[in-house]
Amino acid sequence: MTYNVRDSQNRITTEVVDSFRNTPSDRLRNVMSSLVKHLHDFVREVELTESEWTAAINFLKEVGEITSDRRHEFILLSDVLGLSMTVVDINSSGNSKATESTVFGPFFVNDSPAIKSGEVLPGNAPGVPCLVSGNVCDINGAPIGGALIETWEADENGRYDVEYLSDTTAGRGHLYSAKDGSYSFWCVKPSYYSIPTDGPVGALLRLCDRSPMRPAHVHFKVSADGFRPLVTHIFEKGDPYLGSDAVFGVKESLIVDFVRHEGTPAILPNQNYNYWYEATFNPVLQGK
Amino acid sequence: MTYNVRDSQNRITTEVVDSFRNTPSDRLRNVMSSLVKHLHDFVREVELTESEWTAAINFLKEVGEITSDRRHEFILLSDVLGLSMTVVDINSSGNSKATESTVFGPFFVNDSPAIKSGEVLPGNAPGVPCLVSGNVCDINGAPIGGALIETWEADENGRYDVEYLSDTTAGRGHLYSAKDGSYSFWCVKPSYYSIPTDGPVGALLRLCDRSPMRPAHVHFKVSADGFRPLVTHIFEKGDPYLGSDAVFGVKESLIVDFVRHEGTPAILPNQNYNYWYEATFNPVLQGK
Repeated sequence: MTYNVRDSQNRITTEVVDSFRNTPSDRLRNVMSSLVKHLHDFVREVELTESEWTAAINFLKEVGEITSDRRHEFILLSDVLGLSMTVVDINSSGNSKATESTVFGPFFVNDSPAIKSGEVLPGNAPGVPCLVSGNVCDINGAPIGGALIETWEADENGRYDVEYLSDTTAGRGHLYSAKDGSYSFWCVKPSYYSIPTDGPVGALLRLCDRSPMRPAHVHFKVSADGFRPLVTHIFEKGDPYLGSDAVFGVKESLIVDFVRHEGTPAILPNQNYNYWYEATFNPVLQGK
Repeated sequence: MTYNVRDSQNRITTEVVDSFRNTPSDRLRNVMSSLVKHLHDFVREVELTESEWTAAINFLKEVGEITSDRRHEFILLSDVLGLSMTVVDINSSGNSKATESTVFGPFFVNDSPAIKSGEVLPGNAPGVPCLVSGNVCDINGAPIGGALIETWEADENGRYDVEYLSDTTAGRGHLYSAKDGSYSFWCVKPSYYSIPTDGPVGALLRLCDRSPMRPAHVHFKVSADGFRPLVTHIFEKGDPYLGSDAVFGVKESLIVDFVRHEGTPAILPNQNYNYWYEATFNPVLQGK
């Protein structure tokens, strides 16, 4: 003779949902109720064992232990589970002329260095010089002056400054578009890279035989009064990892040419490289 | 004109599930695929905003920050969402003559002090003396000798030793049943209490106007060769919080009488109280 376990389990879900009945915020009550139902459904569907539950608790504890203001392992976890990209897509529904969004990622830092349009991102991130330029405009093509452009990227070794052993700032900065919407800055040509694999998220990917690689990209956050902030990347056409991004962030419309030029850019006379790249990106913002 | 967002979102879920295709362990692949589908369904159902996603990431970061070897905030989170109890119920399905399981909770500590049957739990936890005794047996009533009984409880102030400011061990211990299955120990009468509310889980409960209270109980983990370990509580009949346990752990079969006796127990001659309590608990274990 056995219990009717299914009834007992559904009783718990009902009880837990009911425990949120007095939540003053309707939104919070709905979110928590939905979260509880879906998590309970997951546990029941796979019949999670107690040792698997313990492993999950320990995994989250490890994610917490490695997390700091420079290491955002919970964001990384959300990213590799495709949760971040699902949230992005839900919230970027809107005008099809606007630039598409993609994941924010774990490597953004507040208060990046200010540069003027046309200048070089400070910090001497190693890599081949790369000029990124374009025009910020609205969905009707009208220029947006004074847009705040925040950018960040991995260097030629595939590392962000926050991953350097030293407390350096490099490969990131912010600038504003000119009245005609134009902007430009010198960075380094981004490289494909592995997301950090020395923590529990990396261990999970190894257990699942999943690639930790991301295709080369430059991050953008573009903000202007009266417009929705745009969080996106540009990816390099031809990158070998465009079809297998570890965080599912690639969109066809965000893939651009990085055009090679011979010579040394005048703004960088002491370069190690006698060639450089150029990429064009025209952020199109939509109203709020 | 708008994107067909729904298609795009389902594409991501398909991509993420597919990314687990090479996972060597079938079980891990199934668990991760199910988790991803249910979490994505949750995000889509409530149309989670980006600021809500950020709040969730920050919440998890805070849960990680307060977690330590004495403070298990991820377990507490699992408990208040009824996840722990759902896992317990799935895994305790089995023989209806066996004692029912309930939540493990965040307050278990490995290597608790050893006592002999009949002795007092060390550490002088404050509270009215309480004798707990009974017999460990199998589902056919045959005694189980040498069963390991681990027990832990909150004191009369509703606090576990790991919540004391000092690094004290109190209100916990382990002992073995005699050949005839019998065991007994002196603890203190447990009190109803609030789960820890000084962390992010407490903040969540306040935002949801949920009670943090648990009815009075004594924890047991009973282990014997050839039997499933039993993790359970005994609750006190008449406790005002039996119907609103913050972690959904109450089961009718686990509610017992705590019988009051007048006088001072001979084993505790210097008691502050001239009365004591007695509770009976007969753990019934089932085979593996």
